[in-house]
Amino acid sequence: MPRRPTRPPPLLADFDDDERDAVLTVNRAFYRAFNDRDYAAMENLWAPAGAMVCLHPGQPPLHERREILESWRGILGHPESPKVRCVGEWVIGRAGLAIVVCREILANGQLMATNSFVRSRDGWYMVGHHSGPVPSIELARSQGAAAATAPTRDRRKLH
Amino acid sequence: MPRRPTRPPPLLADFDDDERDAVLTVNRAFYRAFNDRDYAAMENLWAPAGAMVCLHPGQPPLHERREILESWRGILGHPESPKVRCVGEWVIGRAGLAIVVCREILANGQLMATNSFVRSRDGWYMVGHHSGPVPSIELARSQGAAAATAPTRDRRKLH
Repeated sequence: MPRRPTRPPPLLADFDDDERDAVLTVNRAFYRAFNDRDYAAMENLWAPAGAMVCLHPGQPPLHERREILESWRGILGHPESPKVRCVGEWVIGRAGLAIVVCREILANGQLMATNSFVRSRDGWYMVGHHSGPVPSIELARSQGAAAATAPTRDRRKLH
Repeated sequence: MPRRPTRPPPLLADFDDDERDAVLTVNRAFYRAFNDRDYAAMENLWAPAGAMVCLHPGQPPLHERREILESWRGILGHPESPKVRCVGEWVIGRAGLAIVVCREILANGQLMATNSFVRSRDGWYMVGHHSGPVPSIELARSQGAAAATAPTRDRRKLH
């Protein structure tokens, strides 16, 4: 594949531990808003404008901010909406864009989420959420998923 | 939520149309490798080292390069492995990190994928793949998903 080696790479700028912590703070606030049924907090988490995407498990993708927030209003207001515990956060980031992959623990199953964040002048905002079911792992109440033993992949299954 | 307004924002550097095209080229090469059952191409697409994650639908997350490539070797070598057509690519990027969300059209269903890429000195490499099933939309053979009509979200369903 052509890699255009003659072009100098852009500056792979600053994504330091402070930035990583700031992203994880917003990711945690996302799950807190979920568990507190706090729609205002959820609304403030999502970027005020620009490109975004939300993929609830098994649902059509949502790209409009209005649609995304409407979906969250429905989820947060639903009497059977689950509580979600987020564990095992994995972060990759560069200046202005970061991804957190984490396990979502529900009472009746587990999901993995890929959450995306962009930085604006006043901080990090969510621009992407994609979650889907995964096989459950057992973990103690205070234990992170990274420390738990994951099941072996079923190699008979296809992509 | 605290936004640390006193800290100056980092440089939101260069992610221009050329970079966007370069990321899309690697994303397309990913699906070409898939359809051509070209394991060597698949291996070259993934970052040679560093943090990465692969989430096949309904499967445990894979973080080790060796495990990720082993999973792809299994998929590409499987006699019933499907052909996948990628449509409706949606890109968000900053210097050094980019995300492509796209629809994967299979003969018997559709998935949405969140693919992540980092830039190294010689180009963009895959560091993340997360795909899961979504309701199918109808689209003509040459048509992008963005132009097709998506079904309405089922508001009875929870997150």
